[in-house]
Amino acid sequence: MALLVMKFGGTSVADLPRIRGAAAKVAAEVARGHDVITVVSAMAGRTNELVGWVDATSKFYDAREYDAVVSSGENITAGLMALTLQEMGVPARSWQGWQVPLRTTSAHGAARIEEIPRASIDAKFAEGMKVAVVAGFQGVSAEGRITTLGRGGSDTSAVAFAAAFGAIRCDIYTDVDGVYTTDPRITRKARRLDRIAFEEMLELASLGARVLQTRSVELAMRFGVPLRVLSSFEESTESSGTIVCPEEELMENRVVAGVAHSRDEAKMTLTAVQDQPGIAAAIFGPLAEAHVNVDMIVQNISDHGRTDMTFSCPVDQVARAERAMLAARERKEFAFDELVADTEVAKVSVVGIGMRSHAGVAARMFKALAAEGINIKVITTSEIKISVLIDRKYMELAVQALHDAFELHAGG
Amino acid sequence: MALLVMKFGGTSVADLPRIRGAAAKVAAEVARGHDVITVVSAMAGRTNELVGWVDATSKFYDAREYDAVVSSGENITAGLMALTLQEMGVPARSWQGWQVPLRTTSAHGAARIEEIPRASIDAKFAEGMKVAVVAGFQGVSAEGRITTLGRGGSDTSAVAFAAAFGAIRCDIYTDVDGVYTTDPRITRKARRLDRIAFEEMLELASLGARVLQTRSVELAMRFGVPLRVLSSFEESTESSGTIVCPEEELMENRVVAGVAHSRDEAKMTLTAVQDQPGIAAAIFGPLAEAHVNVDMIVQNISDHGRTDMTFSCPVDQVARAERAMLAARERKEFAFDELVADTEVAKVSVVGIGMRSHAGVAARMFKALAAEGINIKVITTSEIKISVLIDRKYMELAVQALHDAFELHAGG
Repeated sequence: MALLVMKFGGTSVADLPRIRGAAAKVAAEVARGHDVITVVSAMAGRTNELVGWVDATSKFYDAREYDAVVSSGENITAGLMALTLQEMGVPARSWQGWQVPLRTTSAHGAARIEEIPRASIDAKFAEGMKVAVVAGFQGVSAEGRITTLGRGGSDTSAVAFAAAFGAIRCDIYTDVDGVYTTDPRITRKARRLDRIAFEEMLELASLGARVLQTRSVELAMRFGVPLRVLSSFEESTESSGTIVCPEEELMENRVVAGVAHSRDEAKMTLTAVQDQPGIAAAIFGPLAEAHVNVDMIVQNISDHGRTDMTFSCPVDQVARAERAMLAARERKEFAFDELVADTEVAKVSVVGIGMRSHAGVAARMFKALAAEGINIKVITTSEIKISVLIDRKYMELAVQALHDAFELHAGG
Repeated sequence: MALLVMKFGGTSVADLPRIRGAAAKVAAEVARGHDVITVVSAMAGRTNELVGWVDATSKFYDAREYDAVVSSGENITAGLMALTLQEMGVPARSWQGWQVPLRTTSAHGAARIEEIPRASIDAKFAEGMKVAVVAGFQGVSAEGRITTLGRGGSDTSAVAFAAAFGAIRCDIYTDVDGVYTTDPRITRKARRLDRIAFEEMLELASLGARVLQTRSVELAMRFGVPLRVLSSFEESTESSGTIVCPEEELMENRVVAGVAHSRDEAKMTLTAVQDQPGIAAAIFGPLAEAHVNVDMIVQNISDHGRTDMTFSCPVDQVARAERAMLAARERKEFAFDELVADTEVAKVSVVGIGMRSHAGVAARMFKALAAEGINIKVITTSEIKISVLIDRKYMELAVQALHDAFELHAGG
């Protein structure tokens, strides 16, 4: 009997009627002949309530106690989901992270999964159970304390269970019906993709298309677990949603899969930096220590041994980056004339594995932006992605222009 | 270092300010030199919310899933309490039932404690921890599933921890400031008792003085753990509250400790039952099977081989009792003429270990009731208790009269 993993996020199990809706989807897969492991999040709002209590109690909290408190939301959903399935006549039981046990590192709040022994759940499948309901987002450390997996933890749990149990697929039920060529709020021409490669999804996820957490996609890619993203609130069929799969399994032969955007970017430039070996390390070391997530980096051509160094980071980290740079100059680690921050920029990217074999993607991209009179401030590229930093006010226009230029409404 | 167990009920930890109040009481005991195990309930209202969800999900629910869901309320409080203590500078950590582990039977929803290994908590005390915060009401079965202990479970947890760890005392913090000679809402002459014997407390608890659960008092008596009942909402001193202790440790030399009452009683009489061996078994067997909690039983003098059989039970079980009796007659298990139910009765009791050595308590009680013109319908006695069933409308009057007759306002 083929095993399927089905994951339901917080909005998909926000209240008892929605838990029933999710359970009905699980029951339908059981009726199709599947055994199911379903991974559930906390009911929407519960985790925020718990986090709020912890924050109100203690400023510098003990992450072990934070995890003990916050993980309870998923436990509640898991029990209620098991009861709902039983009520529908589907043999089901719940597992909390420590019961499986889903073993993790002791990095509380951001633990990494180490092992998922199958014995406990397999024994119940052997006894005729059809659905194992697992509380997402949590595990247990070697010390026997509850851990949580951090942001997007339930997606990660789901993929890890799919890998450990050799599931045929991991279905991620959420509040959107799949992965789109771009944000449908920006252009109505945005089209749902039937399939997308892991690598493309990774670039889109990290570029701000908030459907799947990067970590869960990485894990799925590593273990070759096909993911499907689909809506909790629509009737599901075999062709619902978007399949995220190895590149070999893509049907379409396209150059660009999608256009991503990220609004909250800032550009910072250090002018007249000495152009000498080790200068990059001198600059980006202190930024890393200050927990500034530097994204794009550009160094100008040197002029009389001096150069300008430009980098981008999230806009809410600008103040921190400035403090780090000024302090480093104070400590005479390096010199610069001015520090110029531009906090009115956005990043727009085109992503597609087809770029590897197709030349001219960058030229087509820059031409489309030029035709709209949009100035490019910084460019970075990877094997399957080209990103540009532009004035934020042109972001929507750029996305629309690129979506048109690569004919994404028609299949790329 | 002497170890103290401190238990806080739901109203004592109803919100973050109250959790801080409870934590301050724990910190004060640490400052006095105690190591502390504190057992916490769910924040008031949380358990009801969780139970409501389970009830709405499933009529005949799987008690294992019920326990998994409902136990989460205590886990939240335990984590928040540990964080609050840490914030106050007191080294503390939380334990969920399975982490201790508090081992129980598999009778989900009403599990019995089997064992509390000390190793995990003792190891942390040895490392300098001052407070172990334990989630009350819950444990773990041999199958590794979460169990709950049923009604008053957190009191029972607290006493069990006190017994397992050889605590000098188990302090039960609640919303009243101790055990009273009678319900202060009935007479303002009611007086807080400094001390009361386990046996007396047991009779008072089961007679409707709802301060402590019967089960926790039984456990405390069995293991010789002194209990103290005191208020969460008042400044505590060494002499606060009421100590429940072995009879030998009572200071006072009194006959009667208190007057208890129970409003929701009913009296049922089967008339003209055959007076023959086995008739009591024939009647009370079907009542037990129907889960009717029979309390008092009286059999009239036989007249020509026939007798009247009277018993009392909670008023909400009358319909069930009637069905059981009529069905038994239908099956010809025994015969009777009429079944007469009186649902307007109350039970009033005087309790005191001094009765063992003092004669005349019953006479004094009946005389006091007679002086008020109160008719006694049924009488039962035990070694340390005399109970009467009377018309409900006289209940308050009877309590006041007995409180006066035994001079309880002045120390009995």
